[in-house]
Amino acid sequence: MSDDGLRYYVDGEFAPADEASIPVTDRGFLYGDAAFETLRAYGGSVFHWRAHAERLAETCDVLGLDHGQSDGELRAIIDETLAENDLEDAYVRLSITRGTQAGRLTPADVVEPRVVVIVEPLERGGRGSESVWDGPATVQTVKTRRIPDRSVPARAKTHNYLNGILARLELRVTGADEALMLDAEGYVTEGATSNLFFVHDDALCTPSLDGPVLPGITRRVVLDLARDEGIPIRERRFTPDDVREADEAFLTNSTWEPRPVETVDGIGVGGGPVTTLLSRLYDEYVESRHY
Amino acid sequence: MSDDGLRYYVDGEFAPADEASIPVTDRGFLYGDAAFETLRAYGGSVFHWRAHAERLAETCDVLGLDHGQSDGELRAIIDETLAENDLEDAYVRLSITRGTQAGRLTPADVVEPRVVVIVEPLERGGRGSESVWDGPATVQTVKTRRIPDRSVPARAKTHNYLNGILARLELRVTGADEALMLDAEGYVTEGATSNLFFVHDDALCTPSLDGPVLPGITRRVVLDLARDEGIPIRERRFTPDDVREADEAFLTNSTWEPRPVETVDGIGVGGGPVTTLLSRLYDEYVESRHY
Repeated sequence: MSDDGLRYYVDGEFAPADEASIPVTDRGFLYGDAAFETLRAYGGSVFHWRAHAERLAETCDVLGLDHGQSDGELRAIIDETLAENDLEDAYVRLSITRGTQAGRLTPADVVEPRVVVIVEPLERGGRGSESVWDGPATVQTVKTRRIPDRSVPARAKTHNYLNGILARLELRVTGADEALMLDAEGYVTEGATSNLFFVHDDALCTPSLDGPVLPGITRRVVLDLARDEGIPIRERRFTPDDVREADEAFLTNSTWEPRPVETVDGIGVGGGPVTTLLSRLYDEYVESRHY
Repeated sequence: MSDDGLRYYVDGEFAPADEASIPVTDRGFLYGDAAFETLRAYGGSVFHWRAHAERLAETCDVLGLDHGQSDGELRAIIDETLAENDLEDAYVRLSITRGTQAGRLTPADVVEPRVVVIVEPLERGGRGSESVWDGPATVQTVKTRRIPDRSVPARAKTHNYLNGILARLELRVTGADEALMLDAEGYVTEGATSNLFFVHDDALCTPSLDGPVLPGITRRVVLDLARDEGIPIRERRFTPDDVREADEAFLTNSTWEPRPVETVDGIGVGGGPVTTLLSRLYDEYVESRHY
């Protein structure tokens, strides 16, 4: 991470990025026992805070982590961190850990959570400025399967990210940008850090949330924009062949926003009119909400 | 954790337990991207270091984490930490993280790992001293399923421990000590932090490592002791009913050593002659290696 002069928020205080640290006894470090959200700030204000706050609450509910902070308090911490760093357009990572506890693995009822906010300048896409990604993504199906919901629910966004890391490690051979992960039955779920969309016969397709798929905020915005535009939507289970044979495909996450897919397993897919339209609508939507 | 006056090793230096910390940019914190081992020291020397070092190497191999430290260097760090704390019989947690890297989820080839060693005094069982556990364990089958090997291999012991934490959270209702976790097909695997043994017709039974089961070091020692004693061993897949209907059952991990099971899903199982014999043999084995 580039941290020149940045200051991070850790447990009530700001510290220079290269000094910001967390106790080694914190469960966030020992077990990845922490919830997090990746957000974008545009014009000094976080995008879709309400949706992120709701998903964070859902994660904490899954983890049985009653951190005792209101949405307003958390947002104020993010706002303070952006102000402390004089940032307008930024990447924001908000984490809440279960803190340090007596005993070992079993979580105690009484929690002294730690809140960490990491920020970085990040230009917004659209408006003629550069996108944060270098170019359309090459996507590769990997052997590492998405963790089933019965093991760790995908709707929980936590510091347990090795499943995605193992998937990304498989890309070292081909140099692809994103891993396409399948569920236990071989159906398409999502990328290691992104949701997947593709186009068949002018319909927008994306794996449904019945499978082990993170309910991405950007995913939801794109679906809402498509619906408003009258684009047919198919949310259900899909096979890898459905994606390879698509007319267009793109990935979404808060950092990338929509990002076109160039190839899937070496097969040319590329962008197209639906991807271009939705990317433009997304940019306009961001602009309309953030002056 | 009780940390009165203890000093932990973090990345080349010792720090008082309540000041020992790790950067929030460390991947061990951000993603649980770290390998670890839980060890016992008896008489100032770690038990079965070679087996732990081999398993740690296996974990790092799964994670593609080339940390560049020799087994001897790692052992020297543990020995130093024990000496720094003047500890003879102790709990030891050795972690190696992938450190801080530029970029986000995809691991870079060049690694500056961080090594962390946490220690705590812990009396050994046997020799007439108290066991570390309060009494025989109550075990409860849980809904949370063990993560399949195709998602994250069970032989990797990492800082991604939410699967076990979710299992333990289910025990809040009954107050049981350990969760019995099943695989995707409903077969018995292990506890959240322990391997499971049980006895049927004088044969020692334990789920085989073909399933998502951590190859516990204590598990291996117990199997070797049973084999030397001529006790028949059955290592294969078992159902929850096999465990509920067992004549005896016990759990193992480095901290607990063998720990008898009192009940499984409320059904009395208890210890018995095989459990008592193997516990005694285990104590003698520890004594024979650590004067």
